[in-house]
Amino acid sequence: MRTIAVVVTARPSYSRIRSALVAIRDHPDLELRLIVGASALLDRYGAVPRRMAADGLEVHERVQVLVEGENDVAMAKTTGLALLELTSVLDRMRPDAVVTVADRYETLATAIAVSYLGIPLVHVQGGEVTGSIDDRVRHAVTKLADLHLPANAAAAARIVAMGEDPARVVVTGCPSIDLAAAVDAGDRLPFDPVARYGGVGADLDPSAGYLVVMQHPVTDEHRDARAHVTATLEAVRASGRPALWFWPNPDAGSDGTSEGIRAFREAHPDSPVRFFKNMAPEDFLALLSHADALVGNSSVGIRECAYLGVPAVNVGSRQQGRDRGHNVLDVTYDRDAIAAAIERAVTSPRPPSDPLYGDGDAGQRIAEALATAPLTPAVHHPA
Amino acid sequence: MRTIAVVVTARPSYSRIRSALVAIRDHPDLELRLIVGASALLDRYGAVPRRMAADGLEVHERVQVLVEGENDVAMAKTTGLALLELTSVLDRMRPDAVVTVADRYETLATAIAVSYLGIPLVHVQGGEVTGSIDDRVRHAVTKLADLHLPANAAAAARIVAMGEDPARVVVTGCPSIDLAAAVDAGDRLPFDPVARYGGVGADLDPSAGYLVVMQHPVTDEHRDARAHVTATLEAVRASGRPALWFWPNPDAGSDGTSEGIRAFREAHPDSPVRFFKNMAPEDFLALLSHADALVGNSSVGIRECAYLGVPAVNVGSRQQGRDRGHNVLDVTYDRDAIAAAIERAVTSPRPPSDPLYGDGDAGQRIAEALATAPLTPAVHHPA
Amino acid sequence: MRTIAVVVTARPSYSRIRSALVAIRDHPDLELRLIVGASALLDRYGAVPRRMAADGLEVHERVQVLVEGENDVAMAKTTGLALLELTSVLDRMRPDAVVTVADRYETLATAIAVSYLGIPLVHVQGGEVTGSIDDRVRHAVTKLADLHLPANAAAAARIVAMGEDPARVVVTGCPSIDLAAAVDAGDRLPFDPVARYGGVGADLDPSAGYLVVMQHPVTDEHRDARAHVTATLEAVRASGRPALWFWPNPDAGSDGTSEGIRAFREAHPDSPVRFFKNMAPEDFLALLSHADALVGNSSVGIRECAYLGVPAVNVGSRQQGRDRGHNVLDVTYDRDAIAAAIERAVTSPRPPSDPLYGDGDAGQRIAEALATAPLTPAVHHPA
Amino acid sequence: MRTIAVVVTARPSYSRIRSALVAIRDHPDLELRLIVGASALLDRYGAVPRRMAADGLEVHERVQVLVEGENDVAMAKTTGLALLELTSVLDRMRPDAVVTVADRYETLATAIAVSYLGIPLVHVQGGEVTGSIDDRVRHAVTKLADLHLPANAAAAARIVAMGEDPARVVVTGCPSIDLAAAVDAGDRLPFDPVARYGGVGADLDPSAGYLVVMQHPVTDEHRDARAHVTATLEAVRASGRPALWFWPNPDAGSDGTSEGIRAFREAHPDSPVRFFKNMAPEDFLALLSHADALVGNSSVGIRECAYLGVPAVNVGSRQQGRDRGHNVLDVTYDRDAIAAAIERAVTSPRPPSDPLYGDGDAGQRIAEALATAPLTPAVHHPA
Repeated sequence: MRTIAVVVTARPSYSRIRSALVAIRDHPDLELRLIVGASALLDRYGAVPRRMAADGLEVHERVQVLVEGENDVAMAKTTGLALLELTSVLDRMRPDAVVTVADRYETLATAIAVSYLGIPLVHVQGGEVTGSIDDRVRHAVTKLADLHLPANAAAAARIVAMGEDPARVVVTGCPSIDLAAAVDAGDRLPFDPVARYGGVGADLDPSAGYLVVMQHPVTDEHRDARAHVTATLEAVRASGRPALWFWPNPDAGSDGTSEGIRAFREAHPDSPVRFFKNMAPEDFLALLSHADALVGNSSVGIRECAYLGVPAVNVGSRQQGRDRGHNVLDVTYDRDAIAAAIERAVTSPRPPSDPLYGDGDAGQRIAEALATAPLTPAVHHPA
Repeated sequence: MRTIAVVVTARPSYSRIRSALVAIRDHPDLELRLIVGASALLDRYGAVPRRMAADGLEVHERVQVLVEGENDVAMAKTTGLALLELTSVLDRMRPDAVVTVADRYETLATAIAVSYLGIPLVHVQGGEVTGSIDDRVRHAVTKLADLHLPANAAAAARIVAMGEDPARVVVTGCPSIDLAAAVDAGDRLPFDPVARYGGVGADLDPSAGYLVVMQHPVTDEHRDARAHVTATLEAVRASGRPALWFWPNPDAGSDGTSEGIRAFREAHPDSPVRFFKNMAPEDFLALLSHADALVGNSSVGIRECAYLGVPAVNVGSRQQGRDRGHNVLDVTYDRDAIAAAIERAVTSPRPPSDPLYGDGDAGQRIAEALATAPLTPAVHHPA
Repeated sequence: MRTIAVVVTARPSYSRIRSALVAIRDHPDLELRLIVGASALLDRYGAVPRRMAADGLEVHERVQVLVEGENDVAMAKTTGLALLELTSVLDRMRPDAVVTVADRYETLATAIAVSYLGIPLVHVQGGEVTGSIDDRVRHAVTKLADLHLPANAAAAARIVAMGEDPARVVVTGCPSIDLAAAVDAGDRLPFDPVARYGGVGADLDPSAGYLVVMQHPVTDEHRDARAHVTATLEAVRASGRPALWFWPNPDAGSDGTSEGIRAFREAHPDSPVRFFKNMAPEDFLALLSHADALVGNSSVGIRECAYLGVPAVNVGSRQQGRDRGHNVLDVTYDRDAIAAAIERAVTSPRPPSDPLYGDGDAGQRIAEALATAPLTPAVHHPA
Repeated sequence: MRTIAVVVTARPSYSRIRSALVAIRDHPDLELRLIVGASALLDRYGAVPRRMAADGLEVHERVQVLVEGENDVAMAKTTGLALLELTSVLDRMRPDAVVTVADRYETLATAIAVSYLGIPLVHVQGGEVTGSIDDRVRHAVTKLADLHLPANAAAAARIVAMGEDPARVVVTGCPSIDLAAAVDAGDRLPFDPVARYGGVGADLDPSAGYLVVMQHPVTDEHRDARAHVTATLEAVRASGRPALWFWPNPDAGSDGTSEGIRAFREAHPDSPVRFFKNMAPEDFLALLSHADALVGNSSVGIRECAYLGVPAVNVGSRQQGRDRGHNVLDVTYDRDAIAAAIERAVTSPRPPSDPLYGDGDAGQRIAEALATAPLTPAVHHPA
């Protein structure tokens, strides 16, 4: 029996890892220890513990470490505080391995604490590339990890290229795709998003087709966040199509984005755009699978939409360098370019499903790898 | 004029970077900002600020962050506390670039703070390999750095192999070799180490030849530290040669090492071994250049001894994987093996000087690179 | 020339100490060092540094330490983080004395850092009593302070009763009253609050009289915050009078208060209540001086309203035990009791001005005390 | 059943509270939760957890927070780090009350964390006075505490004078006296201290009478620590009597003290003084009860020696203001004055036992108070 600790520090990270958490919990040779911290604990970002409880997952430790400020100093201090706290929590817990997900800045705190404590570190979703500061964090975590569970062969190849032992790299697919694969969306949207989730803005009717928009501030360029969001807002408005818009996560720069959205709403109160904070992942994926297109810079456009066969108008640099399927249309932060890509996405034939980021069984494969892979700390051979 | 901050968190790090600090201070286009912290501030590890003052280097910030305990929890918490403090210090200072040296665990705190603040990070001595947890830290820092100043072509090649842009890698040599190159040791040892530095143990006479011993606890294996040091102590004793032994740095496990040394001293009060805490680097290098051999696991055996042409009996795994010249004899933690290697080192012809880690001008090259290289944050291309 | 550091960690603290800051800055024998931190740095609570710049006050250090969560854990961790940071800042600065204001929880961080560093600690507004956890903090700071500058004789007597040396207690009045004394409010409200500050809610007309409401969550009872605010909201609504309502500060429990306000607004969209986040202190005081009454639990009702001669309907326990003048009507968290007190306040003759908390010259007296009082650390005599 | 957490952060604190810990553990209505941290975890200060295990006490949480440096900055940062950690530990544990002991600087971290978390805080040994910075800490803790368990009526009166509710003050005696009362020392010293504890220095014979010396650096005056210890060393030497000298605790300034001792040992290698680091408390108390006198500035001279009837030559300001019995001879840091007091102590009739700090049942009374006193958070009435 191996005890596996998983550290979840943000709402999106939970959605990404959920199927693996369930598979670890249900695996006869594994015992799950769930540690929740940072923005995942805050109500205003969609409190993760409640969702975990609804999913039958017990939270073992809470780590309250988010320093306010939504700027680079706050990010660095949050990581420092998380490192102090996670060291204590993990030293007490001493699990057989610790799983960390992807590339959020606090992820480095987990990786360092675990490395220093001599506990094997497992990295899910390493080896990917996006072109932002996230790349640094993701690759630095790779260099601290003992077992790598990337989404696909291209990511695995990059991990090995960075000097990691191929015997410690297991391609599992990305567990976020498991959720998409599990959703039975039916022939048409099975619920009314406004009735179920409220939101603010126009009282739109999705039955005749709609866009879904998710645009995060880009960590390295937060001063331009307002201009970026405005270009997308105007392109969506120009399309004339109803749009369901999701607020971004609490990274640096969300203020600029928020201001842009507020200014747009005041200037164009009649635009058929409605703004939502969160949705249950199942509802969101059902919504996505029936959308005409996803617009914005979320990795959802690259990952889930590849599997679901939904066109993605990918704006700007946030996903730069990420492996992508044929469903993606890349555009700059330019109103007209975005509008043209929306038009093309909506009028072209729907792209086929692409297993680029997984085929729906990643959670199972992750649990199996955790149960069977060697969990001794890696000897780090010459790169 | 570029403002260059350099963070020094341990006595050995200062010795390694000193010639570069002097070259930065004296460069017409650079302004040096020196930040000293962690064990570099503590008297019992040889207070670095006094030495800096003697070298004409001004300390701009002091960062007191070393958590007591000499174990893995203390290492992780020291890094967390350093991250909190360095973020504040560097946010106030906002230099044009920050230089971090090598691979000590606190180095990650500097690298993360600098990365998040969007300040270009310069890494000196990246790309090397030793086979310990230091490798993880060094490589993780590489993935966070914007400009790489490695010691030699092999290290540069590893940095590029990890996905870094070759245009951002400048081979400078290692500044620690500059000190060795600058020492004019003369025909015989120009001072009496016991008279000048005291120390404890036998009152030995170095005029007929002597060994220098430096054996650090190995970070990943601190429980075995006592056994390791005992093997070396007994082999040195068996050689019958006078030995000058230097206490290790304050890493995890120094207690086991210290206990081994104390037990040996009680059991063998008449052995011709004398123990020193520190020496001025010039004196140490003069001492080294006249030694019959260096014994232990210090990188000095691989680096400085290569340049100086001094045989090095390298014990155990601490330097595993590090590029080495012909002066190095590798042995395991075995008393007899160590004794045999000492005998061979002492009786063989002296090896020639090898510029593997530098030719004496690294400090100048580092300053020049800092003055002229592009210091925009790197776009991190796909690995 | 004495260097005086003042630590400001919240918007209300700045308003309270402003006249003293100006007097310190302008005093020929003093040099001001302003340290701003915690919620005073956050935009959403009315960024203090911008206001300081407008007042001609230079910020010397920023200390970003507010841990998110708005609960007791966040308060304690914010204090811990503030203690770490302020120690570094004050160790570098080494002023001749440090001034801390009143009783906010982070105040203890300043007091401890200063005490340990052996710098004289000056406490403004000690010796008062309110009946909440703030009392503990305020009195604990008193026991750490070397010079006490209370608002009035009753507070001074309590400080001496706690064992402090009477020679180190100087009654100065409270500098927040200086602002009230300096405002020339004229015969009628000299500006339109909605036109100047926006806010949300009804578009009210203050010319026929109005209430001002400020109700903070009570630190010790944050679960009841929503019930408390609802009672006041309904009483204000029952009065039928226009009301200008100010959002509370970022203490524990503001969420409960916020939810109560949101629910009220949805249920009673036509109520003549308008909600404001902040006002320039001069405008706020002018607004207050023309109000029919202040309602809520702010200390403004006890302090500034005493001086201005404005009736205060003081709700609940937050100001319990605080010395008060004849302008105060105390009521429980009961809708009918609050409504009756509003009616009585509005229909009774206006109370006269009362110098209970100061006569308008506190800032000058504080500066003078800082320039002339002995600033050696106090010998703490037997209590 | 009440769960009682006790925080122990130093070796002397453990000795002081031990009988209460045992009584809490054995009380049918109480459940003990032991939290050990800071210097109590460090081997070089006599690792407390091993002693607890030998006493049958289980350690529930370890809090590694001691920042190195032995100066005021280190003290303040240790307190900040302890506050961060204890908040997490106590938030998870949520005991019915937390007990903190006396006046060490880290004690404030416990008091603040507990206060903010709304857990009742119990303070043992409050209300005493010594004239150093410890007074500030002790009294500040008093103002944060909900239940006070002082050693005697004079201390209780001071607590009430500071504004605390008399109903929340229970005189229990000091549990450190319980140890002294429990020791059956017999007619003569029942063990050979050198044989059992080693130590360094002269190989003395205690059978013809001896002094015990304990001199701590004085927190507020650490620069003078060396001069202070030298005066006592020379006075002890002048007395010609054998002396057993105990090394001080790890407070600020221990370096100055240590240097003074080292210099003395080199200058007077033949003096009949032997230096010890620690002893089992029972052995120490037996040693004390047979001593001719205690010399130095330890509270042991004021407290335990009062009960045991041993003369105490109390040097300098460290115990200034503390209530004392007739066994105490106060002297300044003057060699001749100390020597004269030693002579007088040794030649005068032995003082009778004095129950000033307890009669041997404090532990039982503390446990009983914890089981029966109201443990709601105190309403802090006007002082």
